[in-house]
Order: sequence, then structure tokens, then C-alpha cells
Amino acid sequence: MEFHDLTRKLQRENDTKIVMLVSDGIGGLPLTPGGKTELETANTPNLDALATRGTLGLSTPVLPGITPGSGPGHLGLYGYDPLQYNIGRGVLEALGVDFELGPDDVAIRGNFCSLDEQGKISDRRAGRIACEIGSKLCDKLATIKIPGVEVFVRHVKEYRLVIVFRAAGLGGDLEDTDPQRTGVAPLEPVAMNEQAQPTVKVAQEFLSQAREILIDDYPANFLTLRGVAKMPEIPTYNEVYGLRAGAVAVYPMYRGLARLVSMDVLDAGQTLDDQCSRLEASWNDYDFFFVHFKYTDSTGEDGNFDAKVKRIEELDAAIPRIMALNPDVMIVTGDHSTPAKMKSHSWHPVPTLIASDVCRTDACTTFGEASCLQGGLGHFPAKYLMSLAMANAGRFEKYGA
Amino acid sequence: MEFHDLTRKLQRENDTKIVMLVSDGIGGLPLTPGGKTELETANTPNLDALATRGTLGLSTPVLPGITPGSGPGHLGLYGYDPLQYNIGRGVLEALGVDFELGPDDVAIRGNFCSLDEQGKISDRRAGRIACEIGSKLCDKLATIKIPGVEVFVRHVKEYRLVIVFRAAGLGGDLEDTDPQRTGVAPLEPVAMNEQAQPTVKVAQEFLSQAREILIDDYPANFLTLRGVAKMPEIPTYNEVYGLRAGAVAVYPMYRGLARLVSMDVLDAGQTLDDQCSRLEASWNDYDFFFVHFKYTDSTGEDGNFDAKVKRIEELDAAIPRIMALNPDVMIVTGDHSTPAKMKSHSWHPVPTLIASDVCRTDACTTFGEASCLQGGLGHFPAKYLMSLAMANAGRFEKYGA
Repeated sequence: MEFHDLTRKLQRENDTKIVMLVSDGIGGLPLTPGGKTELETANTPNLDALATRGTLGLSTPVLPGITPGSGPGHLGLYGYDPLQYNIGRGVLEALGVDFELGPDDVAIRGNFCSLDEQGKISDRRAGRIACEIGSKLCDKLATIKIPGVEVFVRHVKEYRLVIVFRAAGLGGDLEDTDPQRTGVAPLEPVAMNEQAQPTVKVAQEFLSQAREILIDDYPANFLTLRGVAKMPEIPTYNEVYGLRAGAVAVYPMYRGLARLVSMDVLDAGQTLDDQCSRLEASWNDYDFFFVHFKYTDSTGEDGNFDAKVKRIEELDAAIPRIMALNPDVMIVTGDHSTPAKMKSHSWHPVPTLIASDVCRTDACTTFGEASCLQGGLGHFPAKYLMSLAMANAGRFEKYGA
Repeated sequence: MEFHDLTRKLQRENDTKIVMLVSDGIGGLPLTPGGKTELETANTPNLDALATRGTLGLSTPVLPGITPGSGPGHLGLYGYDPLQYNIGRGVLEALGVDFELGPDDVAIRGNFCSLDEQGKISDRRAGRIACEIGSKLCDKLATIKIPGVEVFVRHVKEYRLVIVFRAAGLGGDLEDTDPQRTGVAPLEPVAMNEQAQPTVKVAQEFLSQAREILIDDYPANFLTLRGVAKMPEIPTYNEVYGLRAGAVAVYPMYRGLARLVSMDVLDAGQTLDDQCSRLEASWNDYDFFFVHFKYTDSTGEDGNFDAKVKRIEELDAAIPRIMALNPDVMIVTGDHSTPAKMKSHSWHPVPTLIASDVCRTDACTTFGEASCLQGGLGHFPAKYLMSLAMANAGRFEKYGA
């Protein structure tokens, strides 16, 4: 039986509340062997109290040794096998600018580039043009009309943009037109299969008009198309878990990922305080809340150990406000590790905490990597975190008699 | 997505070096409950130092409770699911005598046997004839000519031999001709499927000529055919990991297993010292080194606890020479456990150590079973050891954006 067939079959209604607080990239590494990680360095009295009354473990986002991007990382937390569902780069980029993708949409990441007089690429990033310029050029491209197709153009930043073609019958599997090197012309759009043939025509027409429009805009006098993709077909959260789920995320990318599994995306404001207020205001409207905290990842990516520690302490300070709502199941985890030492996402297992009245408490009294290694959940694949959440919420029937 | 499709997709080049030191059958058992295992009894200052700066765990070769032979044990370490790829007994036997099997070869384990006057088997092992006799009889069998087929005969030891038929279009799925009991005639070769029909004819011809040749050689006046098999189709190491891999193994079987996944088999000499010298001499030629140490298994099989302890100490003494090469990722593990107490391979999880600059150090300061149980890698399937190696070497891209 498929995992989600099981969850469909076993789910039952009750009035419990589950909060999944995702501290992006929370897992880390000590700067020197045997030292403390960011999480272990941080002063976290509230998380430690939760750890004491909860149970800890280490979740593996994809497989041992595999470092996930944000897409696979979150799919895992939502209980979807990240190797079964693939989120294309264009889709992720569109989600990242809050574009509401539909099932007929083909999403594409665009890069402005520089063409020389022979039409060959001289700079694949158009001299990293300023945001204002990129934004204006996107407005110009947004005037492109293609019969039978809705065309959307959104600026992302600098030389990066998102293009969406909306029409029934457009396949998503197109090769990149970026040749990945300079001194050659951009590639022509090529379909990977029959369904993508109509998309080739649309892309050709788009590029042909774009060439005219951008002709005087050197160094951004053309663009390449990358990561062409449609939304993956993912069963909805409500269907597989029977949960009314609300997402409270400040950054567009994470709102988009929540939308991908059909969570309601709530207005999260700009700060963790705003997010807590939203949680309070929406408490009666949902069974499950996905709350996303970005800054443990971004400080890790910056390689700033101390800043990551501070962000973890900031997160810790928000815990009492969340716990005041008295969630039946409180989860604290991350979508992956982002050790400041590596300045990047990593494959290391992710510290995870579940607190409920029926969790099997372990001996752990602090929330940290070494502590989680001794925790009651052991090592487990992230895709099973949701079934643990459901179980702790009493939202699963017994399997079999 | 299949595991190796993932590794194909994510692999990236860099100039790191990985050493996987496989101490065959290293895992053990205490002689009395609560006592120390062989590894825990051994004095291993160098392995303990590695354990302190590395991360430990216990690997499961196949599945919990499943005791692997050398074939599945090593396939797991190489990152291939041992339940997906099956190495036939004939193939393993051929690899064990350093026979270089090709894709058109059908490999067979032969047993000399004794036939009585009615042609019934009176001894399935031909009175365990001496090696010299077995060897001479193999020379006689090697004169067999079959039109259109190259025939190879190699002595293994005592009554055991290997036969290889080489010709295009020979299927490998033949039933054993050994009836597994005495007092009955050997069975006729029978094909399990259509592709093996031509092989039946070849086997019949071989056995018919062998009967003539051996007629006066009682107690070894005939032979049975067992474990008929072709090489499994296994994607190459280089393809799935992008690694130039060299195998440094003294025993033919392990050279053969390395050859099965297309590692280069290097001249390893006869001793651990020789192996270290080979490692030093070939250091610049490869990205990955599989170094095999046999004697922790053979002493375990002998039931000689103390001898196994000594062999572990011998291995420990070689560590500084390997570490002087400064590998980016150093792995110490085994293909399975071989507790002296059981005098056999066992299913018990295998002590495993990974040391790199980006491993998440744990609290362990010794290398042993109890210590590994507290280690940062937890329990993990051996087939993921290679993805952990690749990750620690920085040789994987992020999965998804």
C-alpha cells in the first residue's frame, strides 16, 4: 500500500491542533571537531523545556548523504517522498515571486544575457544588471502577446525573471536554451517529448518578440530560458491527512511550497511576531499550521555562526507565545541543515522535536544535535514526520484489526 | 527516482580522495553476555583517534537479521542494493580464482564426485581428494573441446573447480546437476528458460567428454555442475559515482568483486604493508580506494577470538600510514560481522566510521560496537555508505532547488 493510501484510509477527525515550526536550515556543525553546533551554542530555555516534555530525533530529508534544496526539503516535511515528486526550477522560481501557478501553466526561469554583434552570448548574466533595470525590462517583455496563450513576466532580481505561459495542452518538458557558456548563440527551444511540441512554438514566438523588444537594451539585449516545468501533480494535504492546513510564512518561496500541496496561505506579515499574531488570529480556522522561519538558513548560508545562534535565540523567544495557544502537538524541525561552517545546505540529519501528551518522553532535556541523537525518535526519514504528527494528534485509526 | 539515477545526476568532480578500508567480518560478539567484542578488546589507539574526530554508526549489510555472503556484503558497501543485484555462486567462484569473466561467459562451480558401478553418486565430494589430484584432473578436463565455445577449467581446491563456457548467446539459468544426495545418478542439465537451452547442449557435451576423461580417476570419476550463472548487469562505479576507483585487495575474491563494478584492480602484494605501499604509489591516479583486509574474517571463522583481536590491532597499526596520505574522507567498516563466538558470518550490524572535515562529530572516542551504537550515523543500510562518502567528499550537488 502506498503511504498516502494508508494516510487516506486511517485519517480521522478530531479537534486537535498541530503546529509544525520549521526553522529553515536549523541543523549545523561545530566549527571544530567535538565543539558545539549553532543550536547547541544558543541559549534556548524554551526549546529545552519543550525537549524535556517532548521526544527528540534526527530526520533525514531525502536519503543519507543527499543534500536537499528547499523544495525537496519541504516536501519531505509535508510527508511527500521528495524522490517521487519533483519540483522543477521554473516552478520553484515562480513560487518564489508569489505567482499563483495553475495546472495549465508552464513556468520558466529566465536569465537576461548579453549578445554580441554576431548574436553570440558574451555574458550569461547581462553584467548583473541592477534590479531597477531588470524590473523595467520585464515590464517591456510583459507586453508580448501570443495568440491563444496568456503570457506572464515577473522580475525576480538583477538579471533573473520568471516567465509563465498559460494555455491548455502545453507540455512542460523543454530543454534549457542557455548553452552554459559564452561565445556561442543561445540554443533553440527543444521539446523532450511530444506533449512539449506546442510549447516549443510558444517559446520560439516569445523569444522572437523578445529579441525585437530588447534590441537596444545591451547589456541585457536578450534572455535565455531555463528550468522549464509544470506543477507536479501532488495530492492535496487535506485529502491525504484530512487536515485544514494554514501556512504562515514570510518568504514567497515557502508560501509557494505550501500552496503546492494546497495549504491555505495566510498573511504572515514580516516578522516572527507578526507570524505569532497570525497564528493567534487564525487559531480556530485550521487544524494544522506550518510556520516557517527563514533566518536560521540565511545566516548559515552567510557562514555567520554567531548570527545563526542569535536567530535561534530569537526563535526560542517566540516559543512561549505559540505554546500559550496550547497546541496538542508541537513540532520543531528544519527542512535540512545549513551549517555556517559549510555556508550551504547540507545532508546532515535535522534536529527534530515533537511534544504532545502522548509522546514517549526520553531522557533529553536540551534541544541540540547531540541530544537529538539520544532521543526517542532515533533517526527517521523526514517523510514520516507527518504520520508521527497525526498519531500524536490522535488523528489516525488503527491499521488493520 | 532510483538511487543510482540520483547519484548519476548529483555527482560532481573535485580533487578529493576517499579511502574505504574494509576489515572483513570486523563486527563481533562478546564471548559472555555483557563482555567486550573483539573490536572492543583490541588496543586500537589509531582507530580511536579517528573515531574521536569522525562520526560512527552501525551499518546493516542487507536487512536486519540477514547474514550476507561476501558478494552481497561488498555490493552493499559499494552502494548497490544486494537484493537487487544477485551474484551467482559460479560467478563468485570464478572471481575467487581471479578469472576475468566477460559478458558472454557462463560460470559454473564444479564438484568432483564418485560414481559407483551403476553410475550412482557414492560420494558428492569425491573423498575430498588432495589439491594436487584435483589440480591434475582439472588439467585433463581443460583439454575438452566444444565447437563454437571456448571452455575454461580452473581448479579451486580439493574437489572444487570452476568451469567457464564462453560463447555469444549462452543463457545462464541452468539447474544444478548435483542431486544433493548419494545413491542416485547426477541430474541432467536442465534449462530454466529459453535462453539457457543452448547452454544445456554445451553442458551435456562437456559432461559427456568429462565422463570419458575421468573414467579411470575414481574416487573423482565424474563431476556435478552447480551455481551456473552469468555476470549480473551492474552499472559501473565510475558511471554511478563519477569516481576513478582502485581496489587494493590481496585475495582474488575481493579483487573480483571490485572488478564486477568496474573498479581498477591494483597489484596489492601480499601484506597490509604492501597494500599501503600500493596506496601511496597510486595515490594520484584514483579518487577512491577500496582497501580490503581479510584476516578479521578468517580468524572469526576459525572461532579464534584472540587471533581476531590481534588482527584488528595489526589493522590499527596501518592507520597512520594511510592517514599520512591525508584522505579527505576516511571510512573504516566491514562487509558483515564474523563473531568468533559463532565461527561464521552473522547478521549483526557492522561498526562503521567516517572521518572528514565536514562530518558531524559525535561524543564517541573509541571504535567499537557499543560506541558505534551512540554514534552520529545511527543505524543505516550499508548501501547508503557510498552516498555518505560522496557527501563528505563534497562530490554531490544539492538535490532540487
